[in-house]
Amino acid sequence: MKRIGVFTSGGDAPGMNACIRAIVRTAVYNGLEVYGIRRGYNGMIKGDIFKMESLTVSNIIQKGGTILKSARSKEFATKEGRRAAYEQLKAHGIEGLVAIGGDGTFTGANIFYEEYGIPTIGAPGTIDNDLYGTDYTIGYDTAVNTALDAIDKIRDTADSHERVFFVEVMGRDSGYIAIPCAIGGGAEIVMIPETDTSIDYVIEQLRAGWSRSKTSFIVIVAEGDEEGSATEIAAKVSQQIPDMDARVTILGHVQRGGAPSAADRMLASQLGIACVEGLLEGRTNEMAGIINRELVYTPFIETITKQKLINPSFTKMVDILSV
Amino acid sequence: MKRIGVFTSGGDAPGMNACIRAIVRTAVYNGLEVYGIRRGYNGMIKGDIFKMESLTVSNIIQKGGTILKSARSKEFATKEGRRAAYEQLKAHGIEGLVAIGGDGTFTGANIFYEEYGIPTIGAPGTIDNDLYGTDYTIGYDTAVNTALDAIDKIRDTADSHERVFFVEVMGRDSGYIAIPCAIGGGAEIVMIPETDTSIDYVIEQLRAGWSRSKTSFIVIVAEGDEEGSATEIAAKVSQQIPDMDARVTILGHVQRGGAPSAADRMLASQLGIACVEGLLEGRTNEMAGIINRELVYTPFIETITKQKLINPSFTKMVDILSV
Amino acid sequence: MKRIGVFTSGGDAPGMNACIRAIVRTAVYNGLEVYGIRRGYNGMIKGDIFKMESLTVSNIIQKGGTILKSARSKEFATKEGRRAAYEQLKAHGIEGLVAIGGDGTFTGANIFYEEYGIPTIGAPGTIDNDLYGTDYTIGYDTAVNTALDAIDKIRDTADSHERVFFVEVMGRDSGYIAIPCAIGGGAEIVMIPETDTSIDYVIEQLRAGWSRSKTSFIVIVAEGDEEGSATEIAAKVSQQIPDMDARVTILGHVQRGGAPSAADRMLASQLGIACVEGLLEGRTNEMAGIINRELVYTPFIETITKQKLINPSFTKMVDILSV
Amino acid sequence: MKRIGVFTSGGDAPGMNACIRAIVRTAVYNGLEVYGIRRGYNGMIKGDIFKMESLTVSNIIQKGGTILKSARSKEFATKEGRRAAYEQLKAHGIEGLVAIGGDGTFTGANIFYEEYGIPTIGAPGTIDNDLYGTDYTIGYDTAVNTALDAIDKIRDTADSHERVFFVEVMGRDSGYIAIPCAIGGGAEIVMIPETDTSIDYVIEQLRAGWSRSKTSFIVIVAEGDEEGSATEIAAKVSQQIPDMDARVTILGHVQRGGAPSAADRMLASQLGIACVEGLLEGRTNEMAGIINRELVYTPFIETITKQKLINPSFTKMVDILSV
Repeated sequence: MKRIGVFTSGGDAPGMNACIRAIVRTAVYNGLEVYGIRRGYNGMIKGDIFKMESLTVSNIIQKGGTILKSARSKEFATKEGRRAAYEQLKAHGIEGLVAIGGDGTFTGANIFYEEYGIPTIGAPGTIDNDLYGTDYTIGYDTAVNTALDAIDKIRDTADSHERVFFVEVMGRDSGYIAIPCAIGGGAEIVMIPETDTSIDYVIEQLRAGWSRSKTSFIVIVAEGDEEGSATEIAAKVSQQIPDMDARVTILGHVQRGGAPSAADRMLASQLGIACVEGLLEGRTNEMAGIINRELVYTPFIETITKQKLINPSFTKMVDILSV
Repeated sequence: MKRIGVFTSGGDAPGMNACIRAIVRTAVYNGLEVYGIRRGYNGMIKGDIFKMESLTVSNIIQKGGTILKSARSKEFATKEGRRAAYEQLKAHGIEGLVAIGGDGTFTGANIFYEEYGIPTIGAPGTIDNDLYGTDYTIGYDTAVNTALDAIDKIRDTADSHERVFFVEVMGRDSGYIAIPCAIGGGAEIVMIPETDTSIDYVIEQLRAGWSRSKTSFIVIVAEGDEEGSATEIAAKVSQQIPDMDARVTILGHVQRGGAPSAADRMLASQLGIACVEGLLEGRTNEMAGIINRELVYTPFIETITKQKLINPSFTKMVDILSV
Repeated sequence: MKRIGVFTSGGDAPGMNACIRAIVRTAVYNGLEVYGIRRGYNGMIKGDIFKMESLTVSNIIQKGGTILKSARSKEFATKEGRRAAYEQLKAHGIEGLVAIGGDGTFTGANIFYEEYGIPTIGAPGTIDNDLYGTDYTIGYDTAVNTALDAIDKIRDTADSHERVFFVEVMGRDSGYIAIPCAIGGGAEIVMIPETDTSIDYVIEQLRAGWSRSKTSFIVIVAEGDEEGSATEIAAKVSQQIPDMDARVTILGHVQRGGAPSAADRMLASQLGIACVEGLLEGRTNEMAGIINRELVYTPFIETITKQKLINPSFTKMVDILSV
Repeated sequence: MKRIGVFTSGGDAPGMNACIRAIVRTAVYNGLEVYGIRRGYNGMIKGDIFKMESLTVSNIIQKGGTILKSARSKEFATKEGRRAAYEQLKAHGIEGLVAIGGDGTFTGANIFYEEYGIPTIGAPGTIDNDLYGTDYTIGYDTAVNTALDAIDKIRDTADSHERVFFVEVMGRDSGYIAIPCAIGGGAEIVMIPETDTSIDYVIEQLRAGWSRSKTSFIVIVAEGDEEGSATEIAAKVSQQIPDMDARVTILGHVQRGGAPSAADRMLASQLGIACVEGLLEGRTNEMAGIINRELVYTPFIETITKQKLINPSFTKMVDILSV
């Protein structure tokens, strides 16, 4: 292998740039040429491809977002799209790929390999931490810290006005972001898709808190919760407690940006190195991850189909700590 | 005057605690006794009043919110409420008041003084900066920096995905928060209540930007804008540009909390000192403010009725800088 | 067991308050009474002991430092000191202890238990991460992020002026803080006590960098490095490269403070719960830790005598990534 | 005037990039061509000059440092150096200059104009705020906030260990940075070059504090103080109070970097626009500044020779607020 390509795909996550940097420099370190592909599979199809050197990735380790841009590609879902992508890679002499992204990205890579045989190694880049094959995904720690910083600010005002705040955090179908936000944010209640937390339970907890002289409350709602969005949940609770002074905050896209945390820079750097080394070892269709502080490669198919379960003791912790 | 009271009222703002600290310590420094009144006028009515010492306000200068809590009081709008408040102050021997808040707070203080003659000096505590009689209000600089920090994060993701973001910031009926967020956040468009910025203009600017190879846009919307909320504006624009990849973020209550900035701590400290010194000089029904770096006392009635105009050149700046 | 005591000892670390909160609330949750002991073993000797309730620890999860204060105690090293401490605990009816601290703290606890038989469980509270029996200590993640944030700022100015910066970070005899600072900070060289990195090597790397068109450099120096402090190392290098534009920054005590990160709040909360549950299970002289995301109790004697080794591949990463 | 050049010189300051951006875009907006000159006067001499477009300055408003790099130039102090610089400007067709820097920068610009008649307008870019002709310099607000954030962290540990911390901040010969750090940081003592604060006074204040039950102290030392550095002052005090538990922290270059604050981005943007507009109006050898929120142009010679005095009431504030 002489020349590899790198791209980011799916939702952006802090640390993607740190990972790109590690990939480029590990390639250079090992005598490989490395090309950047812009806008994920779309850029592969359109040939938006350029040579990267060690200096191309100077001073990006601390930047949020992705210098390679990201996009979801409808065209790559078609045979014609993938054919065009292959032609471009061939024209540029690219013999291996590193894909930074999530399950959509790896699904595409799997099909592409079957059709055209270009080996691909993936790095888990998503704030949601919902990928099997790694304890943490790149961007997760930063997103949690960003959300927590916002929750700290909200608590200032919740506390001053003795209000109930319903704060919605990201996480798609999982409570991975919500849980540390609730525990670290000193929240009284957490609502995640993995557990059933009824509106009645919320009301009960609020009433129990008031009776224990608590004057302000924070309820963390994961965006995928089965009871609905934070706005919907607040409305349901307000129906039964009409005089509750409630406010809703949806943290939104703020959680995707910002300088990556130390942990995300470490993880992104380790996995970026591992992706290139994996390609050099002849691996393909595997995602590099860290499990129990050890490097592990997991087949794409498992990262997509297997589920990473959240530690069930964590919701119990919220109860104990808000006593 | 031997004994004064201090309270916070209306929406909380970062720097209120720094102001409380300055008031308490200036009182102690001048040999006055000082009592804290919790929950604004409500606590005055209920007698939720306690003695404060120098150590009571240790280690609070950096804290968001208000240790005296805040609330809006319906009861104080009634004669009975104000009578009860007066009785409490009399019972506690409080001969002067310092009120940290906004126009609602000062309106109440004006009526109260007419009825009961307890002198009151005010400090402008609101993130909205919409009070006449001071260049900046306590909390404004922090709120702008908090919003800007969020906008920086949003730009990371806007840039990576080449999207249009509509970001709603606070400010009640003014664009004071929106303007520095737009200029400092590198936004392409700003929509504030003070100027008419039509949906057509927004669309024109977006199209002009795309034609100049801009790929991502940030539109800052002040919550009081005449075209509606960020959600409504985004919907109106999307109707005419259906394939626009747009996202809406409402920064919300995050803007009210957090450690106050250096400027807010300075301002809060200066004004806290000035409030107590004003009372000692025999002033009443005036708000302490800083205009052109000089201390100025302005009658409450002027702070309520006069309007502080935003510099009209600022919206022009957004146009120039996004060229 | 009906009543337990909690104290912090040794250098303070962010997250100690989150741990105190978890200990107090878990005690309350389990029907135990809990007393706070101020200033570590000193307060135990002097009887500086007070009852804590659930509300005592409200709104402290996000605070740096320790509300229980910390101090090193010479008196506790004497038989008389420990006798006095025991008398105080007996007088207050305290039957079990939770100690948040490091190896000095646990050494004291071991001796104390042998003499007086009061069971003690420890939580690892130190920014240095140099304790055997847990992957991470409470405060470590925050300290690394604080240092990294400072290094990001230094890189701005290093880059603008094309200088060589020698940045000294904490860590006592270990490179645990230095390593992620170097990798995450995009440093060119890292010097830690665990490895021999000679002055000649530093000079070689600088010259190699200049020849590859690098214009600015960051050298991270762990405070315990065998070549001396950052100041000394910079002087040695300058002697051989007199025209090098070098600057030294010693991050110092800034690294000990600040709001704990999400990871530190989670860890502190988990371990705080585990300490109380450990006492209730009849454990003593053990430290609660998290290894591979599982709760583990390790005898104090092992945490003191065994060494936690740093992953040797990490220094190699610095070389690859600064290519 | 058809083509202008822009450069940064002297110590870097946060907001320089925001200013460069405003200069470039205002030039483009007004139909001017604009060239960037790297490394200050050095790059002018060597012809390190490149064309800048609107997109060249995309996404830099939030970045610390200066994309144009900065350096001090010995060569420009010579006639030959300035001759070479002039030849380069002539060769590139540059008819006007915008210089972002401090008094050294403007001194050079004055001599250069006398010799070669190329009009130059300056923007005050220095964290020290020691330039006459503007209330605040670009970078000052950010540097103060950065220092204050560090002081907040130090107070956590000072408070936990009941120590005396001597914290040295930047500011060259002025106390502009020290004063808001002391007031905003809740410091007990501030030592600045503009006032005589003796070691005896420091000792007296510490003893008075201890007698009032204060247990921790922060002393802010401006780097130019007449009693010496923080290290020297701490040593002098320790000589007379040997059992004082004191620590010294020198904040150093961290204060120069980081994302500019909202106020600095506003100021940098306003002044960048004003520099270009000043050139277009035919001005030269003047610095753009903001005094009392109004744009003011001040001759370079005045900015260099006149002194901006610090408000003398500020040191008094430290005394009142630490009572």
